[in-house]
Amino acid sequence: MTDARHESVIDDPRQLRQSNFPVLWPMQLRWLDVDRYGHVNNAVNYELMDTAINSWLAEQVGKDVRVLSAFGVVVETGCRFFREMQANDKPILGIRLEGTGTSSVRYEVGFFIDDDEPVAIAKFVHVYVDPETRRPSRIPDEVSQALQLIQP
Amino acid sequence: MTDARHESVIDDPRQLRQSNFPVLWPMQLRWLDVDRYGHVNNAVNYELMDTAINSWLAEQVGKDVRVLSAFGVVVETGCRFFREMQANDKPILGIRLEGTGTSSVRYEVGFFIDDDEPVAIAKFVHVYVDPETRRPSRIPDEVSQALQLIQP
Amino acid sequence: MTDARHESVIDDPRQLRQSNFPVLWPMQLRWLDVDRYGHVNNAVNYELMDTAINSWLAEQVGKDVRVLSAFGVVVETGCRFFREMQANDKPILGIRLEGTGTSSVRYEVGFFIDDDEPVAIAKFVHVYVDPETRRPSRIPDEVSQALQLIQP
Amino acid sequence: MTDARHESVIDDPRQLRQSNFPVLWPMQLRWLDVDRYGHVNNAVNYELMDTAINSWLAEQVGKDVRVLSAFGVVVETGCRFFREMQANDKPILGIRLEGTGTSSVRYEVGFFIDDDEPVAIAKFVHVYVDPETRRPSRIPDEVSQALQLIQP
Repeated sequence: MTDARHESVIDDPRQLRQSNFPVLWPMQLRWLDVDRYGHVNNAVNYELMDTAINSWLAEQVGKDVRVLSAFGVVVETGCRFFREMQANDKPILGIRLEGTGTSSVRYEVGFFIDDDEPVAIAKFVHVYVDPETRRPSRIPDEVSQALQLIQP
Repeated sequence: MTDARHESVIDDPRQLRQSNFPVLWPMQLRWLDVDRYGHVNNAVNYELMDTAINSWLAEQVGKDVRVLSAFGVVVETGCRFFREMQANDKPILGIRLEGTGTSSVRYEVGFFIDDDEPVAIAKFVHVYVDPETRRPSRIPDEVSQALQLIQP
Repeated sequence: MTDARHESVIDDPRQLRQSNFPVLWPMQLRWLDVDRYGHVNNAVNYELMDTAINSWLAEQVGKDVRVLSAFGVVVETGCRFFREMQANDKPILGIRLEGTGTSSVRYEVGFFIDDDEPVAIAKFVHVYVDPETRRPSRIPDEVSQALQLIQP
Repeated sequence: MTDARHESVIDDPRQLRQSNFPVLWPMQLRWLDVDRYGHVNNAVNYELMDTAINSWLAEQVGKDVRVLSAFGVVVETGCRFFREMQANDKPILGIRLEGTGTSSVRYEVGFFIDDDEPVAIAKFVHVYVDPETRRPSRIPDEVSQALQLIQP
């Protein structure tokens, strides 16, 4: 029934709260992140999401992800923005697993600046590839184990 | 029949070519854009897309977009990545209009490094808001006129 | 005797330690900060320094620095790099005042990843300007008060 | 008499013009480069300089700089800012050699938005290191040859 659950979230992602995410990753903004309108530029959300997911993953599997049998290439990302972030906000990123395939891992990420409705909700899809051939490869065991901690 | 056309594109965006886009915007990569895997980081595509769309728009409506009756806030973006970009690639971004609402403008952006299949296809949605209230506002006339140049 | 002291530091900045800096500001790296050589790109140090100084200053003078009588424009920066930073490092930035003029404030910033020798030492010079004319202006009182906390 | 020449430049770098630089490298700004004050953030100059020097070098020595006997690590950078850059400026970076040591190469970089006085003048110092040991190494022959094109 994962699909049913997920559909309901898609219907109204603004109802997600920090408590819906098994991993919460506090992040810092930089002065440069703000654009001429005084709010955080949309591309910054992707820098933050990329960092939060990879940092959490590196922490779980041990530091050198380069020794794994495959590495994750980003094949799709997307973000819906509900509120603007300001330079002095201290965003917290919630990470949860949306699903996995043989080679792919789909994450859902919530951006929060308080414990109310999210400022943004994003998705992030990794496909694991062989370091040499760069062809899709099975998700490494160390990664699969880590993902069990953020099952939906 | 816009929907039908668009659906077919969604079905296979890899078949898009530079000739499908009325505006082609050459862009530069930076040394810093490449990450530890030697390819361009996924967040960079969003920096490029944001710049190409806003630069093209600024050129069309005249330089100071701040005098317009409303300004565009990004409410949704997304990108599918088909091939990796390298540091010395010289990407060309194709821009076309996917559709408009009362306040919203949806763009489709193709990332090309040659005139073959795209390295990535992205979407970008602006909602125009009143500079004071930041509530949705009608698309400014100058913007509507510019958008006629990139109609699907 | 400030000059004498400072000269000795210039002579061997590698001898600086965290304890030489009255303010220590922990910062996060981003996945994108690393370049093709697997180390943090040199431009990132400037993003970090800019953020640490402005964030500390905003915290001291109260949040909205835009209400001050003048704002700081960066007129000079520089950095010497002694060791490479890696993606999973958690840099701590030390901030101290090097000196002030009528309109200018010179900071010295140390980058540390442990309490041993710095990975880099940098300088950062603000000149306060009038928001309207953008001509040099007296350092705002709120800023002068904050700077007393990081006197050499 | 290189020192004498260089000293005179240090005395008044604002007198430098595009014609003082043997290599001129046009660069693009990004929407995100602008900060809350509506001007280009100081850290961006370093991203641009790093890209211009490395891109010019890669073009001269052939594309894959990784096959060289040593690679350049940045050990010092610095920049003096004379004028603000705006989002729609199209900066041109002038590159010239300031000098070389056994392992080190010192560049001087001018930032221009028109053929009048520079908006900024910067320095950039590479030290070539052995890819394995990361100890200083002789400047690769291919690099030395390229540098002859930008001799002072």
